[in-house]
Amino acid sequence: MTSGEMPNGDFPLLIRHLMPTANRSTVAGEIVDASGLRFTYPQFAERVARLAGALTACGVKQGETVAVLDWDTHRYLECFYAIPVMGCVLMTVNVRLSRDQVRYTIDNSGATTVITHPDFLPLLTAGVPELRLQKIIVVGDAGDFEPPPDVEMAEYYAITEAAAPDFAYPDVDERSRATMFYTSGTTGNPKGVYYSHRQIFLHTLGVLATFGTAPAQGRFGADDVYMPITPLFHAHAWGFPYAATLLGAKQVYPGRYKADILLRLIEEESVTFSHCVASVLRMLLDELKVRPVDLSRMKMLIGGGALPGGLVRSALEHRIDIFSGYGMSEAFAIQTVNHLTATEAVAELDEQLRLRTRPGRPALLCDVRTVTPDLGETAVGEEGEIVFRSPWLTPGYWRNEEESQELWRGGWLHSGDIGKFGEDGALCITDRVKDVIKSGGEWISSLLLESLISQVEGVAESAVIATPDARWAERPMALVVPREGYDLEVEAIRTALTAAATAGVIPRYGVPEHIKLVDALEKTSVGKLDKKALRARYVEQVV
Amino acid sequence: MTSGEMPNGDFPLLIRHLMPTANRSTVAGEIVDASGLRFTYPQFAERVARLAGALTACGVKQGETVAVLDWDTHRYLECFYAIPVMGCVLMTVNVRLSRDQVRYTIDNSGATTVITHPDFLPLLTAGVPELRLQKIIVVGDAGDFEPPPDVEMAEYYAITEAAAPDFAYPDVDERSRATMFYTSGTTGNPKGVYYSHRQIFLHTLGVLATFGTAPAQGRFGADDVYMPITPLFHAHAWGFPYAATLLGAKQVYPGRYKADILLRLIEEESVTFSHCVASVLRMLLDELKVRPVDLSRMKMLIGGGALPGGLVRSALEHRIDIFSGYGMSEAFAIQTVNHLTATEAVAELDEQLRLRTRPGRPALLCDVRTVTPDLGETAVGEEGEIVFRSPWLTPGYWRNEEESQELWRGGWLHSGDIGKFGEDGALCITDRVKDVIKSGGEWISSLLLESLISQVEGVAESAVIATPDARWAERPMALVVPREGYDLEVEAIRTALTAAATAGVIPRYGVPEHIKLVDALEKTSVGKLDKKALRARYVEQVV
Repeated sequence: MTSGEMPNGDFPLLIRHLMPTANRSTVAGEIVDASGLRFTYPQFAERVARLAGALTACGVKQGETVAVLDWDTHRYLECFYAIPVMGCVLMTVNVRLSRDQVRYTIDNSGATTVITHPDFLPLLTAGVPELRLQKIIVVGDAGDFEPPPDVEMAEYYAITEAAAPDFAYPDVDERSRATMFYTSGTTGNPKGVYYSHRQIFLHTLGVLATFGTAPAQGRFGADDVYMPITPLFHAHAWGFPYAATLLGAKQVYPGRYKADILLRLIEEESVTFSHCVASVLRMLLDELKVRPVDLSRMKMLIGGGALPGGLVRSALEHRIDIFSGYGMSEAFAIQTVNHLTATEAVAELDEQLRLRTRPGRPALLCDVRTVTPDLGETAVGEEGEIVFRSPWLTPGYWRNEEESQELWRGGWLHSGDIGKFGEDGALCITDRVKDVIKSGGEWISSLLLESLISQVEGVAESAVIATPDARWAERPMALVVPREGYDLEVEAIRTALTAAATAGVIPRYGVPEHIKLVDALEKTSVGKLDKKALRARYVEQVV
Repeated sequence: MTSGEMPNGDFPLLIRHLMPTANRSTVAGEIVDASGLRFTYPQFAERVARLAGALTACGVKQGETVAVLDWDTHRYLECFYAIPVMGCVLMTVNVRLSRDQVRYTIDNSGATTVITHPDFLPLLTAGVPELRLQKIIVVGDAGDFEPPPDVEMAEYYAITEAAAPDFAYPDVDERSRATMFYTSGTTGNPKGVYYSHRQIFLHTLGVLATFGTAPAQGRFGADDVYMPITPLFHAHAWGFPYAATLLGAKQVYPGRYKADILLRLIEEESVTFSHCVASVLRMLLDELKVRPVDLSRMKMLIGGGALPGGLVRSALEHRIDIFSGYGMSEAFAIQTVNHLTATEAVAELDEQLRLRTRPGRPALLCDVRTVTPDLGETAVGEEGEIVFRSPWLTPGYWRNEEESQELWRGGWLHSGDIGKFGEDGALCITDRVKDVIKSGGEWISSLLLESLISQVEGVAESAVIATPDARWAERPMALVVPREGYDLEVEAIRTALTAAATAGVIPRYGVPEHIKLVDALEKTSVGKLDKKALRARYVEQVV
């Protein structure tokens, strides 16, 4: 805490103010790591200061971008604080992307310093593009990793222990960039979104105000024990790590997600609040069959895609308070949340299934509307594109002026989703303007797959569409038109895509199970692929 | 809602954003007035727009100050919104001050338009200072009120009904002044404090985050029914009207406070959350003897002074969830709040009495410290002056540069109170800097002496003030009002205090030489002991 920062009542909205206030830290909250490490909040504050000091000692300067590749650990939470409060930009790397995509995002972000778990060192060896790294800070043993020439190496615990336990945090502009991460949309390359100190500060308060005041269920309070099961590189784990820290609540960081470890931590640490995508919850419920754990105190917020009724039923059978939210990477995370009203919370099971799969009502301060193409608001019950205004929307895509303008057309952030509001004030999502495939909480770019397929000898054109999948929510399906006179085989396409995955161009889960040769592809009036028509025609054949 | 206000993600922190978001307004919340009027949130939003339109039609221009004199009505809530969102400054007049003080505050604020209940018209007739009013908007019938020359008169409901149901709210700077009110301190004239849109926005989120996430008791949520029993001119009723409105919760406005009406509204409208000063709660509890009402669902936040253990006992007997907060007009309202932890909430009755009288722990985002005169932080258990940093502190006193500098000495807002933090993280207030008695270099707590004297048989109330002393600099003087029908003797008090000193409860030098029986004690307009007046009256007799 620097002095003199608030001349006569001014108070900048900075991440350093999202620590528990001095005297609340005497509350019993602690930060528990799956490794067995445990920290009180004063210890955590000290570790944040040490990390800021260590990075400074490594030569990291204010304004630089620091990329982090790690599992969900206490270290990541330290990075959530130390990197922005020292005036740098935290880039949370989506390590599930292909190697080339990971490298693209690091390169595009401008990061020259990387903090990484050894599991991700292979992503940093030679590849495309060539990285311009100067420092790699690795957690523990780097093994036989050969750093690129002129890259300095350091070890995370060694440098933080060597640093001083306090740090004079610089004054930064509340509107300066604090964090960034990449979202893989429909275009080939992932796009960077970014958030200021002010936006993260306001989102944190908004999360606490919205989830604290929930009328009947799904509440998040100071007595909760929080554990993320959404990776911290996914939209800051929806902002909950900042919220839990400001509250001084007990937090549990589970490391790499393994169903048995997650269940053990929930049981041993009495976790009460978490969030994940549907497929992860299904994995947990499957694991319960071999490792029974009482989940009746758990509140589980499901996002990142539709919440299937069957999953709600299974969760309710385990007495999990399951509910749904809706947002997107461009909107920090949460825009609507499905907190049931007191009346809804006591509805019969079948009605609960319907109610709990809704994306919910707008969160506090979120102006969520459904609009016509000319931005007129549609009436209740009428479909329109879902658009947002709220205090925590990305100003644009990083270094991509054209798509930023499109994202913010007419002064509203465009979700690309189609939906309508019900009489109950809850949003219902009916379709997507753009076609992406959401598999296990990750986006698969249909355009990238189409581009790769188009490079296979004998392919005239192709379309990749989403098919529903019980386990992964969605899986890609490739529809391919052979060129005249070519004897195209499905296996040739599968082989090409598998090779692309092996080469790190696409993630392994990007290879479609369903590849179908067809005579022609439906087009819209302007000659674009009509994916809605294609889904209507082909998807039913699979399900 | 104006368009184009958020170029690419910017979102100004304005009071107009503290309305429930469009689609949450389908929630069942309503605004109930003691007069019998009831409004849905969409109706309320329309009335706010009508009031802004009506004031504009009356000639009120952006940047002007509008003073309001009213009981706690739906009209006042409309003023809380309409006046700031149209770009004016809302001045909430403390109608309990003397007529001359009321006139002083209106004059000092620069208001030329006044909205007033007819009960307060007499304050606006000729007097000191001469008011420079241009418009008086009266609620209902002005009776035989003779407006000063050149003052236009209008009627509140008539002009709002004549206005359009929508209004194009101007864009204003989030740091512009939105509200102001006056606090009667120890100096002669009341002093104006003021708050910006940004500060009110942040305080509203802070209240919801702090009270929503409360671990065990005293929670405020979307399912609560809120009624203020702190006047809206007292620090915006501690900010709860804005918080309840943003939530879309049901709200009840009780008009002029009368114990029977308050109890009737609590019962009929199922009120669950309120706040008041200790003396008002005692009045309600007295009224319960003639009008039994079930208060077991009530959460009552007590502020504006110490919460006596006897009152906690009475409230708990009625199963009221009573708890305490601490703040001051210069700090918007709330800086600490005494939410019990889960463990504390199940303590035995005697322990509950002790726990619930504490002012509590710092609210979220409130940096509350106890410091030495040179601003060094005191250790846990050690007394110091209580100072604040938080997002909702007045930048100073209006048009009073000298006292503003003193208020903000060293970059911290000085409370003028003395306190210490306990091992439990809770603040304990021991005295006021301005009331504190410094004897032989040691502080003597007047509050502690008053508390001990109050336990002597036959004492109605007491005040302890400082008198100059050649040897010790200052010595305490006790002024004691006997209870009706008791034959109280000074020696009984001296004996009790000497026993307390022998028992180590107070230091031996804490026993006053001067103990004086008096008929009554001077009070300020808000019912606090007016020690300045007491000193002026009694101290001269000694020196």
